[in-house]
Amino acid sequence: MTPHPAQPAIVLVRPQMGENIGAAARAMWNFGLDRMRVVAPRDGWPNPQAVAMASGAGRLLDEARPFGDLRGAIEDCHFTFATTARPRGMTKPVYTPQAAMEEARDRIARGERVGFIFGPERAGLENDDIAQASAIVSVPVNPDFPSLNLAQCVLLCAYEWRLATEEATPVSEGLVGTDRASAEDVARLVDHYEERLDQAGFFYPETKSDTMKRTFRNMWSRLPLTTADVHILHGVMRQMVRWKERGED
Amino acid sequence: MTPHPAQPAIVLVRPQMGENIGAAARAMWNFGLDRMRVVAPRDGWPNPQAVAMASGAGRLLDEARPFGDLRGAIEDCHFTFATTARPRGMTKPVYTPQAAMEEARDRIARGERVGFIFGPERAGLENDDIAQASAIVSVPVNPDFPSLNLAQCVLLCAYEWRLATEEATPVSEGLVGTDRASAEDVARLVDHYEERLDQAGFFYPETKSDTMKRTFRNMWSRLPLTTADVHILHGVMRQMVRWKERGED
Repeated sequence: MTPHPAQPAIVLVRPQMGENIGAAARAMWNFGLDRMRVVAPRDGWPNPQAVAMASGAGRLLDEARPFGDLRGAIEDCHFTFATTARPRGMTKPVYTPQAAMEEARDRIARGERVGFIFGPERAGLENDDIAQASAIVSVPVNPDFPSLNLAQCVLLCAYEWRLATEEATPVSEGLVGTDRASAEDVARLVDHYEERLDQAGFFYPETKSDTMKRTFRNMWSRLPLTTADVHILHGVMRQMVRWKERGED
Repeated sequence: MTPHPAQPAIVLVRPQMGENIGAAARAMWNFGLDRMRVVAPRDGWPNPQAVAMASGAGRLLDEARPFGDLRGAIEDCHFTFATTARPRGMTKPVYTPQAAMEEARDRIARGERVGFIFGPERAGLENDDIAQASAIVSVPVNPDFPSLNLAQCVLLCAYEWRLATEEATPVSEGLVGTDRASAEDVARLVDHYEERLDQAGFFYPETKSDTMKRTFRNMWSRLPLTTADVHILHGVMRQMVRWKERGED
């Protein structure tokens, strides 16, 4: 058993189906969360259906702490978020999952313990549960179809935890295992094409050839070519020249 | 049939289980996406299992367009994202779901059509599929447990679409149906408490009473009280006074 990294506890309150507990464990571990607490699970604890469903995330269930009531489950927490679909009428701050996980990250960094509380599958958290939480998290679902299940709700929160704590590059070039072509690589490629296309009469009429050549060079410079692409493109032109020189149809 | 709002198409390539197609439809509609395209579904089209699973999102399946191959499914798209767990070795830009949906939103705003391509449940997209896409989306999962299913992957992308297009308030006060107490409300509350606590000998010794009163007032001013809270707190103090004045134990 490795020591838990600093992360929020995921507290499942009165969960019903073992399958959903297992699916929640998977969703947590998909994004690196592994501290589950279970309050008064309907079918007792441990739950074989939960274990069967969790497969690769079964360790979370082995290590999950069962509690008799929510109060006991969150007694060591300094800040807790209650998840609810409809935060209407509650006198509590309402966070998006993103803002909640950023808050959790910052509080944990300051040494606090943070819990995220999820209600039973059908009804969700009761008002008496929510009254014990410091704040509310609400996923901005389509109001015409707000039917997220337990594991989906856990998944979105766990995803936001990872975004809040990982340095993800929004867009990367994806040039893994290849190299971006240098300006000189591209310039030589354009020289090669330009020379052959000149021979082939491509830049015609003469009065427009300078403009055409600039446009042509500009196009190649703008494209995100790799050295492999440049290699291929040289090959294309060489092959066309060879084909021409063979003089066949 | 209402006209589709401007949004990306969700393209499912060779999906296997009808249940997963239905779950993907639900995940889309949870976040307001309703344009599905289906490429070569294993069990034909329409698929009764998909319809049964989709329940409230069944309309998406009724309106989903089936295609024989991916090329046909994306032929009208100006920009396509292929979802894949492991974008290694691909010479294509790799986006996070968030960056991808922001890109999609901006392109759609400029009049482009955008598609998100999801592979079959087990194997995911093949390299020949990915080669047809403009870019890659990769969910930043836990590398030790990257097992997202189809509907979960669709869910996270649809969630990011909603975040990219909705103005969500990261944290709202949640004081729906109540009113935040004014500074004057709080000041009068503190006056009330201070007066009675003075009578009760709370601010003792005399030499420290000014500091204690400042700390006390500061505490109340810092708390996010509503007018209802203030009302309750006045009642608490009145009741304590009444209880004292009755002279009982």
